[in-house]
Amino acid sequence: MTQRLRGVLSPVVTPFRPDYSPDPQRFVRHCKWLLAHGCSGLAVFGTNSEANSLSADERMLLLEQLVERGVPASQLMPGTGCSALTDSVRLTAHAVKLGCAGVLMLPPFYYKGVPDEGLFRNFSEVIQRVADDRLQLYLYHIPPVAQVPITLALIERLLTSYPGTVAGVKDSSGDWANTQAMIDAFAKRGFDVFAGSEVFLLRTMRAGGAGCITAGANVNPHGIDKVYRGWQSPEAEALQASADKIRHILQSQVSMIPALKTTIAHFADDRDWQTVRPPLVELTLESRAMLVSDLIAAGFDTPGIKG
Amino acid sequence: MTQRLRGVLSPVVTPFRPDYSPDPQRFVRHCKWLLAHGCSGLAVFGTNSEANSLSADERMLLLEQLVERGVPASQLMPGTGCSALTDSVRLTAHAVKLGCAGVLMLPPFYYKGVPDEGLFRNFSEVIQRVADDRLQLYLYHIPPVAQVPITLALIERLLTSYPGTVAGVKDSSGDWANTQAMIDAFAKRGFDVFAGSEVFLLRTMRAGGAGCITAGANVNPHGIDKVYRGWQSPEAEALQASADKIRHILQSQVSMIPALKTTIAHFADDRDWQTVRPPLVELTLESRAMLVSDLIAAGFDTPGIKG
Repeated sequence: MTQRLRGVLSPVVTPFRPDYSPDPQRFVRHCKWLLAHGCSGLAVFGTNSEANSLSADERMLLLEQLVERGVPASQLMPGTGCSALTDSVRLTAHAVKLGCAGVLMLPPFYYKGVPDEGLFRNFSEVIQRVADDRLQLYLYHIPPVAQVPITLALIERLLTSYPGTVAGVKDSSGDWANTQAMIDAFAKRGFDVFAGSEVFLLRTMRAGGAGCITAGANVNPHGIDKVYRGWQSPEAEALQASADKIRHILQSQVSMIPALKTTIAHFADDRDWQTVRPPLVELTLESRAMLVSDLIAAGFDTPGIKG
Repeated sequence: MTQRLRGVLSPVVTPFRPDYSPDPQRFVRHCKWLLAHGCSGLAVFGTNSEANSLSADERMLLLEQLVERGVPASQLMPGTGCSALTDSVRLTAHAVKLGCAGVLMLPPFYYKGVPDEGLFRNFSEVIQRVADDRLQLYLYHIPPVAQVPITLALIERLLTSYPGTVAGVKDSSGDWANTQAMIDAFAKRGFDVFAGSEVFLLRTMRAGGAGCITAGANVNPHGIDKVYRGWQSPEAEALQASADKIRHILQSQVSMIPALKTTIAHFADDRDWQTVRPPLVELTLESRAMLVSDLIAAGFDTPGIKG
């Protein structure tokens, strides 16, 4: 078992070529930039990675390319939760075999209103079929998108059944009371709670959480890492406020993923980063200009991103 | 191009073995029973088929097994819409190559609140990449589950861009006004509107629609087909009322899919049909008993299902 990941993780955006095929070269470059500028880990194939617009084969190939080209598997937490049980098993087994630090698992998200018993069976089947002690499974709670929640009762049951394997959660509910409840209930049992946005990072650390896994870390890993490293310092609130300012500018766009890609495209001077795979749509020219000018006015920068 | 499907189509439930692997033998048997007892076509791999709990490879293998074992491809309309564009392309191309009458495509359903432009690009990419004149694409509108709608504006745009390919829609909104609006707007242009439940079948036929694609047809194909064949007869209302009675009993259960499987298991005297794949859960013993006794009290039967 590798060291548990803590700190700031980025759900890395996936670059596409004009024909919507994934671009491993840009992907590796961005991953390395993130690790060099504040990310302690990479939650590749998250929501913001457009991972749910990729096939299982595309994800596995990209993950292999990352590892082959020098991104340490010990810093990777790929998303492996699919709507099909068999896909989740396949992706999870593959990630463990590559030596990944953990996997971040969505619940099966097509069928709505399913009982906790069904979700328990899903995760349980994945753990039993992968059958590898190295597996560190992080649950992914993102009800606004998945529409299928990971409840406290489900966590309790999974943690009790698989204490060495069920390692933590990413809470993207946007509801601080829920994050706090997860930490209060499970952190003492070695269950690592990550906030789903940097805006909750300071509160998460003060409450006993492990860090954050956040879209914003794609472009502001250094700013968010300062909050993580400085959370016990006198500057903690000021550092959080600085990180928040950038987050709010990104969030002011209609859609976070193209906003992140626009930001990278601009600061890396690499317009091909704009491309998003359907059903997403890139920002309009007007939105792009406004986003970039707002970021610059806020003093934002991405040191060294220009490759 | 094969003949357009009309009438009653069943989104065929997928039988699983105790280890949750698909059971092709039971699947073929049930498909043949449905075609012999009132279904004009089979919308395999629909919502009620637990298709979104199957990997792309599992679906393709099952489809090949159906065709190899004598289920005519000209009566098949497999579901091929996935959250990943590349999966949708692969499944659609495979179905067309096998000679299927059409495909029923969900929009990509993970990302919510996506613009029509992104959905247009998704369907457009599938059509262009499959690049086969035989493709008959039916759009699948099921907002209660997919949470991503197929709007009238999107249909208009797709039908105008791909008039020989965009063939129709299954409307599972449960909103008759929407079904009526789809028929009124597009039926004259050769766009076939199927209701997503048999309770709307008579209204659909009277308005100029093509039939229904409905979960209930898994167990009551003969009863629903009577409505289809008799919609212009003096008995139309009575036939619709009879079909509705069965539908309401099935729908009274917490979850339709295990209710359908329980019904088949009972009437075919084949308890292994109960199995559902996670995240679904089978009915409780009490619910099963109540469902079966309600069906029997209503005079329900499934002639010849006992294999």
